[in-house]
Amino acid sequence: MLKKINHIALAVEDIDDAAKFYQNCLGLELSGIETISAQKSKVGFFQIGASSIELVQPAEPDSPLQKFLAAKGQGIHHICFEVDDIEAEIKNLLAKGATMIDHGPRPGAHNARVAFIHPKSAAGVLIELVELAQG
Amino acid sequence: MLKKINHIALAVEDIDDAAKFYQNCLGLELSGIETISAQKSKVGFFQIGASSIELVQPAEPDSPLQKFLAAKGQGIHHICFEVDDIEAEIKNLLAKGATMIDHGPRPGAHNARVAFIHPKSAAGVLIELVELAQG
Repeated sequence: MLKKINHIALAVEDIDDAAKFYQNCLGLELSGIETISAQKSKVGFFQIGASSIELVQPAEPDSPLQKFLAAKGQGIHHICFEVDDIEAEIKNLLAKGATMIDHGPRPGAHNARVAFIHPKSAAGVLIELVELAQG
Repeated sequence: MLKKINHIALAVEDIDDAAKFYQNCLGLELSGIETISAQKSKVGFFQIGASSIELVQPAEPDSPLQKFLAAKGQGIHHICFEVDDIEAEIKNLLAKGATMIDHGPRPGAHNARVAFIHPKSAAGVLIELVELAQG
């Protein structure tokens, strides 16, 4: 079962510059910017209600996100829904014929487990599912 | 102050077809599909947590959304944040130099008042602000 929108990820060219708008103009609070080496990206989160906005900037020229920016420019990259049981969701999606990027959960930040649904199954939208770590 | 994500709007070619994925594969419940004549579009909402996913399909060939689909294809169209006081937000955004599509609130669905921020101020993202009707 989908519980809520965990976050919306925005692909940006310059995270410090983009963060200024969300901080100064919209009054959101930045949780801090960190580099995720495995994904060759820099990320920052703004909490809003029960969800958050994630800014993501490529940290290396060969970052997968760099391709996205080159092809599409800055904008919304994906939506992440929080689920109770990611293995059950993946199994259900595969059984219903959805095209999955991940056929099993893989590690996300903070010991969460994540999986991506291919945009061709979801009307052009890249969807991430996340099951947060217990406790 | 921004309270929460009110909705994420997805531009789709065929709302019935796109709705199937969100209903059958993700288990979300569709609130019903309606035509908004003023915007020449068909819309449907799925509630998820405190927010919703809005599917939007052009209802006429000269719908503004048809241009978006022709240029970018299906995908996320905008994010809508709920605010307490839309006039104060617009005033604040203009004072801080943000480029607004709407310099004052205009009527939205269910007597809400809405305003759009231009993507060039928000790192490529089209942002809607909504102040819901009282009561």
